[in-house]
Amino acid sequence: MTMKFFEKITALAIAAASVLTFSQTAIAEMSVSKELLDNFKPITAGAVPNKDNAITPEKVMLGKMLFHEPRLSKSGLFSCNTCHNLAAFGMSNLPSDIGHKWTIGPINGPTVMNAAYNTAQFWNGRAKDLEEQAKGPILNPAEMGMSDEASIVKRIGSIAVYAELFAKAFPQEKEPLTYNNIARAIAAFERTLLTPSRFDAFLSGNEAALTDKEKNGLKLFVATGCTACHNGVGIGGGSFQKMGVANQYKTANKAKGRFEVTGKNEDINVFKVPTLRNIEMTYPYFHDGSVWQLEEAVKIMAFVQLGKKLADNEAADIAAFLKSLTGTIPEEALKLPVLPPSGKDTSRPDFK
Amino acid sequence: MTMKFFEKITALAIAAASVLTFSQTAIAEMSVSKELLDNFKPITAGAVPNKDNAITPEKVMLGKMLFHEPRLSKSGLFSCNTCHNLAAFGMSNLPSDIGHKWTIGPINGPTVMNAAYNTAQFWNGRAKDLEEQAKGPILNPAEMGMSDEASIVKRIGSIAVYAELFAKAFPQEKEPLTYNNIARAIAAFERTLLTPSRFDAFLSGNEAALTDKEKNGLKLFVATGCTACHNGVGIGGGSFQKMGVANQYKTANKAKGRFEVTGKNEDINVFKVPTLRNIEMTYPYFHDGSVWQLEEAVKIMAFVQLGKKLADNEAADIAAFLKSLTGTIPEEALKLPVLPPSGKDTSRPDFK
Repeated sequence: MTMKFFEKITALAIAAASVLTFSQTAIAEMSVSKELLDNFKPITAGAVPNKDNAITPEKVMLGKMLFHEPRLSKSGLFSCNTCHNLAAFGMSNLPSDIGHKWTIGPINGPTVMNAAYNTAQFWNGRAKDLEEQAKGPILNPAEMGMSDEASIVKRIGSIAVYAELFAKAFPQEKEPLTYNNIARAIAAFERTLLTPSRFDAFLSGNEAALTDKEKNGLKLFVATGCTACHNGVGIGGGSFQKMGVANQYKTANKAKGRFEVTGKNEDINVFKVPTLRNIEMTYPYFHDGSVWQLEEAVKIMAFVQLGKKLADNEAADIAAFLKSLTGTIPEEALKLPVLPPSGKDTSRPDFK
Repeated sequence: MTMKFFEKITALAIAAASVLTFSQTAIAEMSVSKELLDNFKPITAGAVPNKDNAITPEKVMLGKMLFHEPRLSKSGLFSCNTCHNLAAFGMSNLPSDIGHKWTIGPINGPTVMNAAYNTAQFWNGRAKDLEEQAKGPILNPAEMGMSDEASIVKRIGSIAVYAELFAKAFPQEKEPLTYNNIARAIAAFERTLLTPSRFDAFLSGNEAALTDKEKNGLKLFVATGCTACHNGVGIGGGSFQKMGVANQYKTANKAKGRFEVTGKNEDINVFKVPTLRNIEMTYPYFHDGSVWQLEEAVKIMAFVQLGKKLADNEAADIAAFLKSLTGTIPEEALKLPVLPPSGKDTSRPDFK
């Protein structure tokens, strides 16, 4: 995708927003039309596929264990689940996360729920998919702090049970336990972290699944122009956009967004649009984790991206709609695995 | 319990150990007699009761949520589960745990599994039960780091769902949400963390539940004198004992044990005997977390406590028996709760 594309769709969104006059009566009388619903797509059960990483029960089970595996961190303190807490909708509810030796992270940690739908991973999109993403934090000195791929493979390989499980999860491969396959197993598990919500029932034709207030919020959400970016099955996650299109956003951190990947000036402050699924639960908001109230986040986004000042009741209705996106975490994902014991040669935790 | 009692039973144990001659043949021919089995008691299903803290489903469910609740820590990073990881048999497998601002703890963190059977909590027994124990780490500046009880109650009380759940868990009480009741709910959950194992099946009459090697290990375990301290339903946890009765134990840390509670010189290096249930999974061993191999820990204990040098094959058989104590974590305990969202007034995480 090029910058031109972003400019085009954000320009369209602003145009859409400015021609509408938001009398509550007009909005209430608007029907939730098929065209309106075409902005979205419901979650279907199962897993988001990747042709290069077949989702099998064996791989998902192994991936869940590795997701909860603190031995993937130098200290033995952090697992993927520390910052992407499945009990908290796949994130930590911290402005930014804490890593090895109490290093404070530079950016808000995104949720892992429904992340499989994202067009790319990380706020700046530096990983093309979950398989690539999973390899980052383990080796990041400010996160899990492992020194190199070989020592990770060696540590995991020293745990007898894992050798068996990798052989089962990657049965065609001569060398099943590799760093790539650690990441592929974790990603396979993450591809099952899909959370259908009342809104999906509504999209599938159950009109009673949303209250009138929520339907009103939905219509306002569309009329305001939010769907220019927050659309599709993820209701976001499908594109990169500049933060501060209509008005400047005063950021609370130093992240430069997509610029960090492309080095292009036009990509400064361009970030991946986050999913709005479970947004009620995945505060604090924005890449800087600076905003804690959903209504406030809605107002800021409308103003900063679309040049629209929402009234309190409008923001409240949109927030009510957004809360209908709070979904159900798959039961299997909430079942903790039991981790296998270390072997004689398993490298020891290192707090330094 | 007085020091005299400890001296008496450890003296008895040493006497028992020294009169026995451990030819493998003699041990193999020994029957697993009723007297031998009388040293132990099987785990029964359910929960370990406390007359001052009735175990109800509502309280256990709330306790499980609080057990996984990172908002009980100043930073929002740590929950009880961080150091007492249910996926790792209720502990962290670290020599000592990491707390607020990367503070390294002074002692190995004991498992929470079957801790309800312990005669007291913490290595030095400074808490009389789990209800009292649960109040410690939350307020410890080196652990979860909350400043005072009032701010904990305020933070939890600001989360709407908890107000309801406390009312349901403590229905008779005028003020259901108190710091005591936070601890009582967590303790109620912990009282359900019982892990029956193959050895319990054996104790209940299923002779095939143990292999010959394990039965041999069991007989050696008793003949060596280990049951002087490791007995009862917890196979430990029932008394305080000096570490280094027969020979000096060179500790890797500064903990002074029971002395820290009583101030009596005779209590220096007197620690609560740990449970041996799940000992295969709850390495590294001893209060200093200095030993990683079970066979090595068995040898050290036999020498240091009972003045007996075990041969490699004897230690291996005892370790084989001890591995039959690896139990099944209750299914309900492994189901992650979904945590409720913060409210407008919920105090923010503080990394400092």
